[in-house]
Amino acid sequence: MKELEEKILKEGKILPGNVLLVGSFLNQQVDVALLRNMAKEVKRLFPQEITKIVTVEASGIAFATAVALELDVPFVFAKKSKASNLSGAIYSAEVYSFTHEKQYKIFINEDYLKPTDKVLILDDFLAKGEAIRGLIALIEQSGATLVGAAVEIEKVFQNGGNSLRAEGYDVKALASITDMTDSTIKFN
Amino acid sequence: MKELEEKILKEGKILPGNVLLVGSFLNQQVDVALLRNMAKEVKRLFPQEITKIVTVEASGIAFATAVALELDVPFVFAKKSKASNLSGAIYSAEVYSFTHEKQYKIFINEDYLKPTDKVLILDDFLAKGEAIRGLIALIEQSGATLVGAAVEIEKVFQNGGNSLRAEGYDVKALASITDMTDSTIKFN
Repeated sequence: MKELEEKILKEGKILPGNVLLVGSFLNQQVDVALLRNMAKEVKRLFPQEITKIVTVEASGIAFATAVALELDVPFVFAKKSKASNLSGAIYSAEVYSFTHEKQYKIFINEDYLKPTDKVLILDDFLAKGEAIRGLIALIEQSGATLVGAAVEIEKVFQNGGNSLRAEGYDVKALASITDMTDSTIKFN
Repeated sequence: MKELEEKILKEGKILPGNVLLVGSFLNQQVDVALLRNMAKEVKRLFPQEITKIVTVEASGIAFATAVALELDVPFVFAKKSKASNLSGAIYSAEVYSFTHEKQYKIFINEDYLKPTDKVLILDDFLAKGEAIRGLIALIEQSGATLVGAAVEIEKVFQNGGNSLRAEGYDVKALASITDMTDSTIKFN
């Protein structure tokens, strides 16, 4: 998606450890015109029937909200802590975050994912694919049908997306970064 | 807002410690038709010029996204941890969460709040007002103008909202719960 690629080139900042900062327009401050266009693009990329959107807190929620409003379907976000406001039977999975260098659990209340659901996973970044694998595990536990996954930015060189595609998952990115150095970002 | 009150009466669940569970439609699974109408209602309640929306991760993000899309202004969410993807100079404030019984810090990158900004704070719940006070502190540090705060649900009996109003802040709720027991929820 050209508009997103141009924004990344203009405002993205690269830090050591393959970290791409997009806080000025994507995941701390959010540019709503871009967000609206990204939601429309996801709708175009996934014309299949979708009954529910699933993401993981916190930085995926803005994207999920915009796409859910565009598709007019409910969305659910997996929580990272089993807080007092998460009750009843739950699905859970383990996720390792390379960004934060720690293992965490994600949870979704069983009431919010049903075997009849056709689910699209959304997230902001796809690097090694750990968060998406965690969400896939929750969806498989529920018996729902996984339609696919859409991410704002895929860091292709970290192989998570290609490894998921090799297993048959329909994973699409709005911007696919093939190479990232101190001074350049390349898209495919 | 009648639609939200009816949804709370129909699907809300009360737990000990004044916890109201609204996970089925508001803060784990999100009903987008209701969300869209809440965003329109915020626009009606705050007709003043607003240049930026500020909230705190994670459960305020869906509401903030919908309102930002409706008002067509950027939004910023304060983060609860100073992760590797939050760089540069930051504003920070302390917040005590009664729900989770712990103190935490919230952060916003200085680039995302400017003295020229006219800011509306959004959050899902207002109980004792701690999260909103933390966000007010960040906004004051930036020199931006605070227009007011809108929340989805205020638990009036926990006094955070009235205490903020007594200090002159323009705080509005889409549903104001005056009393909550095991079996009944009353609105004003």
